[in-house]
Amino acid sequence: IELKEENSILDNLSELHPADIAELFRELDLEEAKYLYLLADDETAADVITELEEDERKRFLDSLPSEVIAKRFIDKMESDDAADVLGEMDDDRQQEVLSHMDDIKSAGDIADLLSYDEDTAGGLMAKEFIKVKESWNLTTCLRSMRRQGEEMDEVYYVYVVDNDGILKGTLSLKRLLLSPIHKTVKDIYNDDLISVRTDVPAEEVSAIMEKYDLVALPVIDSINRLVGRITIDDVVDFIREEAEKDYQLASGITDDVETSDRVWVHTRARMPWLIIGMIGGVLSSRVVSGFVNLMETHPELSFFMGLIAAMGGNIGMQSSAIIVQSLASGSMGLDTTWGKLFKELGIAFINATILSAIILGYNLIIGENLALTYTVSIALFSVVVFASLFGTFIPLLMKRMNIDPAVATGPFVTTLNDIIGMFLYLTIATICYNILI
Amino acid sequence: IELKEENSILDNLSELHPADIAELFRELDLEEAKYLYLLADDETAADVITELEEDERKRFLDSLPSEVIAKRFIDKMESDDAADVLGEMDDDRQQEVLSHMDDIKSAGDIADLLSYDEDTAGGLMAKEFIKVKESWNLTTCLRSMRRQGEEMDEVYYVYVVDNDGILKGTLSLKRLLLSPIHKTVKDIYNDDLISVRTDVPAEEVSAIMEKYDLVALPVIDSINRLVGRITIDDVVDFIREEAEKDYQLASGITDDVETSDRVWVHTRARMPWLIIGMIGGVLSSRVVSGFVNLMETHPELSFFMGLIAAMGGNIGMQSSAIIVQSLASGSMGLDTTWGKLFKELGIAFINATILSAIILGYNLIIGENLALTYTVSIALFSVVVFASLFGTFIPLLMKRMNIDPAVATGPFVTTLNDIIGMFLYLTIATICYNILI
Repeated sequence: IELKEENSILDNLSELHPADIAELFRELDLEEAKYLYLLADDETAADVITELEEDERKRFLDSLPSEVIAKRFIDKMESDDAADVLGEMDDDRQQEVLSHMDDIKSAGDIADLLSYDEDTAGGLMAKEFIKVKESWNLTTCLRSMRRQGEEMDEVYYVYVVDNDGILKGTLSLKRLLLSPIHKTVKDIYNDDLISVRTDVPAEEVSAIMEKYDLVALPVIDSINRLVGRITIDDVVDFIREEAEKDYQLASGITDDVETSDRVWVHTRARMPWLIIGMIGGVLSSRVVSGFVNLMETHPELSFFMGLIAAMGGNIGMQSSAIIVQSLASGSMGLDTTWGKLFKELGIAFINATILSAIILGYNLIIGENLALTYTVSIALFSVVVFASLFGTFIPLLMKRMNIDPAVATGPFVTTLNDIIGMFLYLTIATICYNILI
Repeated sequence: IELKEENSILDNLSELHPADIAELFRELDLEEAKYLYLLADDETAADVITELEEDERKRFLDSLPSEVIAKRFIDKMESDDAADVLGEMDDDRQQEVLSHMDDIKSAGDIADLLSYDEDTAGGLMAKEFIKVKESWNLTTCLRSMRRQGEEMDEVYYVYVVDNDGILKGTLSLKRLLLSPIHKTVKDIYNDDLISVRTDVPAEEVSAIMEKYDLVALPVIDSINRLVGRITIDDVVDFIREEAEKDYQLASGITDDVETSDRVWVHTRARMPWLIIGMIGGVLSSRVVSGFVNLMETHPELSFFMGLIAAMGGNIGMQSSAIIVQSLASGSMGLDTTWGKLFKELGIAFINATILSAIILGYNLIIGENLALTYTVSIALFSVVVFASLFGTFIPLLMKRMNIDPAVATGPFVTTLNDIIGMFLYLTIATICYNILI
C-alpha cells in the first residue's frame, strides 16, 4: 500500500466487499485512508463510509470539506444511511452538507429523516421504496418499477398505494412473476398488511419483524400514507446493539464501550456501579458493626460472611435475569405478576433446602460448633428465599416505574442482597447463639 | 371459543397471522387446541406449528398420529421448518412421519437436512430456492422461475448455476426487471458472490450475514454445488438465542430456560453455579478461619469483608464482560492479548485509586481506627487490580482452551475473586496491624 501503485490498488479494491475494505481501512492512518478513499469509485467509497465504526467515520469526515462529503458520499448513499451519517454531525455541518447535494429530492428526504427520533420507526426507515398505484395494470406497473428501481440497491417488496398515497398492501415479486400481464395491480396485490407508524419505538419494530419473520416493513404517517420502509439488516444491527447493552448492564457497565475505547471512557462507564457497590459495602459494614459485640465473642461467625453474601448475590442475579428476559421477549402477561412471584418462591424453597442441607452436612462433618452450624444453614435458607423474591420483584417494579429492568440484574440486586444477607445472618446468629450457648 | 361455533371461529382465524394464532393457542388446553388446529386450513395450521414454542409443539404433536402430522403439517411446511420440527422427535417417529409424506421429493429433502448438525449452515438452510442455468435466455428463465416459485412463500434471490449444478452467482429480481428480454442469464447475473459450505458453524453464518447485510445466503457442498439457502429470519432467531444464552450464562444460569418452564427445570439450570458459589464460599471460609486469631482480637475487620468481596466480584464481572464481548464480536486481534492486559491494568489502577481514596476519606471522617482504615484502602486497591487482571485473563484463557468464555463472566470470576479478596484483605490486615499496633 505504501508504494501507492494506483492501478494495482484499484484492482484489489474493486474485488473486495465494502465491509472488508472498511476493516482494512481501520488499520491505516488518516492520510493513507483518505488517499485510498479518493481513489475508490464513488459507490464503493460511500458504502465503505457506511460500514465504518462511528468514531472512525467521524474522524475521517471531519477532515473533509462539506462539499466533498455531499457530492462524493451522501449523494450516493441510501437515505437511511445518509441520515445516520449526517445525524452524527452537528446541525451547522448538516445544513452545509445538505446544501451541497446535487439531488434536491434526496436532500429533502434526508432532511425529513433527520427530523425523526433515532429510536423510532421513523429513525430506522429509508425513503427508497417502490410504490405502485392499485389502479395500474401490470404493464404500467412494471414500467414504473423499472424506473423507480434504478436508484435502489435491492428490491424485496413493492408497495401498493391508492391515489392519495395511502398504503393499501404489498405486491410480491413472486406474484408479479406468476400473473398474466393483462391484470391490474388491484387483482393481485396482497392486502394482508403489517405496517408501523413513524413514532413506533424501535424495540417494537424489531419485535414485530421478528415475530412475523419480515424482511421489510412499510412505515406510514398518522393518516396512513406510506412514507418509508425498514429493512431487516437495520433491525439486526439494532437487536445486536440491544443485546450487548443488556449484557453490559447485567455486568455493571453503563455506557456502550468497546475494547478499543480509551481508558477514561472505560473508567467512566464502570464507575457508577462501582460507587453503588461501595455505598452498599459501606452500608453493610454499618450493619455488621451493629453486631460488634457478637463478632467479638464469636469471631468464627466471620468465616461464612463471604458465603452468605455471595449466595445472596448469585441467587438475586439469576432470578432477576430470568424476569428481565421474559419482560424483554414479551413472553409474560400483565396479570401474572403474582404467578411469577409464587413460582419463584417455589424454586427458591427447593434451592434453599438443597443448599442449606449441603452446608449443614459440611459443617457437621468438619465438626464446626453447633450454634454456627445452625446459624449458617438457617441464614442461607432465608437469604436464598429473600434474594429470589427481591430478584423477581425489583425488575417488575422498575418496569412499572418505566426504568429499564436490565439495570436491576447487575450490581444493584447483588448489592441490596449483600446488605440484607448480612443483616439476616447476624440476626439469626444472635438468636441461635442465645438459645444454644 | 367454548361454544365451538365453527364458522365464526374460522372467520376469526383466517384474519389472524399464524404467529398471533400461535400466541392465542398457548392459552388453550390440549383438546381445545387440537380441535382448532383441525379446523384451520392446512397452510395456516402448518405455519402455526412452526411458530409454537418447542415444548408446546412437542406436547401437541405427541398427541397426534404420524400420518396426520405428515400429511397435514410437514407436507405443507418449508423444508427447513419441517426439518426443525422433525429434529425434535426421536428417530423412529421421524422415519414414520417421513414415510407417510405424499411428496417424496420433499421427504428426501427433509431427510437430507436432518443429517446436518443443527448448529451449522447445513442445519440452518432450506431446500427451497430458485435456480436458473447461466446458459438460459430470460424467457426460459422467467418460465422456469414461475414454475419453481409456485411452492415457495417468497422469493428474494435467484441463484445461477452451470450445467453441473455448481453455483456461479445470483440474479437479482431488480436486474431481471430492468433487463430486455432477449438477453441471457449469463449477461446479467452477478458473479460477485458470498456463499458458505454446509459445515460452516452457525455463528460464522450469522457473522457473515450481518457483516454483508445479506437477506439470503446460498449454501454449497464440498464441490461448490448449490444445495440450499439460509434466510435472515432464521439467523435473527439464532442471534437472539445466542444473546439470551450469553446473558443467562453471565447471570449464572446454565440451560436456556423460559419463565414458563417447570420449577424443576429452573432448579436444574441454576444449581450448577450455585454449587460452585457454595464451594467458593466454603473455600473462603477456610481462608478466613486461617486468620481466626486476628479476627478474635480485631472483630472490626469483619465490618468490611462484605465490601471487599463485593467490589472484587463487581470489578471481575465488568472486566470479563468487556473481554467476552470483544471476543464474541471478533473485534480483537490475536496478538493483542498483552495489549488488553496492559490497558485493563491502566483502567484498574485508575479505578483502584479513586475507590480506595473514597473509602479512605470515609473511614477517616467516621474516625475508624487507623490500622483498619489503612487495611481497607490498601486491600481495596489490591483487590481491584487483581480482580481486573483475573477478569481479563480468565476469559482469554478459556477461549484458548476452547471453552465458551461467556461462562467466565458469571459466578465463576466472582467466586474466585471472593476467595482471593478475603486472602488479600486479611494478609494486608495482619501486616498493617503488626506495624501500627
